[in-house]
Amino acid sequence: MTKIPTSTLKRLPQYLEVLNQLRRAGLKAVSATKISVFADVHQTLVRKDLAFTGEENVPKQGYRILELIKAIEECLNWNDTSPCYLVGVGHLGSALLGYQEFAQKGLSIVAGFDNEPRLIDTVVHGIPVYSVLDFHAMAKRQDIRIGIISVPPESAQFVADIMIHSGIKAIWNFTPQKIQVPAGIIVEYVDMFASLAVLSRRLAENPS
Amino acid sequence: MTKIPTSTLKRLPQYLEVLNQLRRAGLKAVSATKISVFADVHQTLVRKDLAFTGEENVPKQGYRILELIKAIEECLNWNDTSPCYLVGVGHLGSALLGYQEFAQKGLSIVAGFDNEPRLIDTVVHGIPVYSVLDFHAMAKRQDIRIGIISVPPESAQFVADIMIHSGIKAIWNFTPQKIQVPAGIIVEYVDMFASLAVLSRRLAENPS
Repeated sequence: MTKIPTSTLKRLPQYLEVLNQLRRAGLKAVSATKISVFADVHQTLVRKDLAFTGEENVPKQGYRILELIKAIEECLNWNDTSPCYLVGVGHLGSALLGYQEFAQKGLSIVAGFDNEPRLIDTVVHGIPVYSVLDFHAMAKRQDIRIGIISVPPESAQFVADIMIHSGIKAIWNFTPQKIQVPAGIIVEYVDMFASLAVLSRRLAENPS
Repeated sequence: MTKIPTSTLKRLPQYLEVLNQLRRAGLKAVSATKISVFADVHQTLVRKDLAFTGEENVPKQGYRILELIKAIEECLNWNDTSPCYLVGVGHLGSALLGYQEFAQKGLSIVAGFDNEPRLIDTVVHGIPVYSVLDFHAMAKRQDIRIGIISVPPESAQFVADIMIHSGIKAIWNFTPQKIQVPAGIIVEYVDMFASLAVLSRRLAENPS
């Protein structure tokens, strides 16, 4: 499997968003120029990124939208559904349990875990919540490979250690806490405070 | 006010996280090397980033933790609280309304807005929810400058237009939809699907 650069991978969901909107509007084909405008990415980059999907940009016609959507989803493995566990059923964790969009992005959260007694054995947005103590045995039994961390930052490393010990191969970390993992384990961060930092500073710099 | 580079700004919250943990552990000072290890950022970069705060790295002592925390918070304007409006009180929006951490990051969400009748005039996690139709008049009256968008992506531009028309200067966009704004308006994205794309692909590339 070709290794696609991280920067390209991060832009593919944007193209997917644009393509799905065009498809809903009834279009069948679209030029790289149009994708470039809607996704706010330079044309050269759009062409380069989309080359990884194997789809062809037919002169004077552009990309076939439906085929390109499928090709991007295949690149991201989003056409296939992977079961995943989430640890930390607070406000953010609960929201993630109920987030409908994950289904179209190949992710199915099948269980939540917490150490708070009033949450254990409840059902949040249709997903059962268990004790963190059950994580290991359940993950092994169900062969879970993806784990989401949405605990307070100071517990992130602890949870990551449990996950890795339980056979998790990819960790999606929603805390700003950097976690240490052995080679071969994939970690991705959704660091909302990084973008809040930029927003806050830029606003302070431009007090208009 | 000095313009701090975006890459530095994005790392400042990580340092803040590390420093707060060290402070809770009872430490008074810390070296750049230690921050580098905990934040997983190269030492040279740590020193360069922290130089923007104006705090001194005293030889053989390091940075004074409490002072450095305050200096970073001042850089990000997180010591000051800005009122902000959120549009889109679905799963994610509700979670954001209840997110305690914003208070320490200078952000106070004072109202939510939605167009769903069963949400309007309710209170979610202590925050009142109004009709989107009231956004303009309320934002003008309360002089709101920050808006959070957590609607479905296809409505993001529409909501952004309302926000800009109502005097909002900085938009924090939680949808993957790129939005067009006039010069001078700040937009920051929390694009969780960009990181999910990287995670999904890397996992597919390493089927171990």
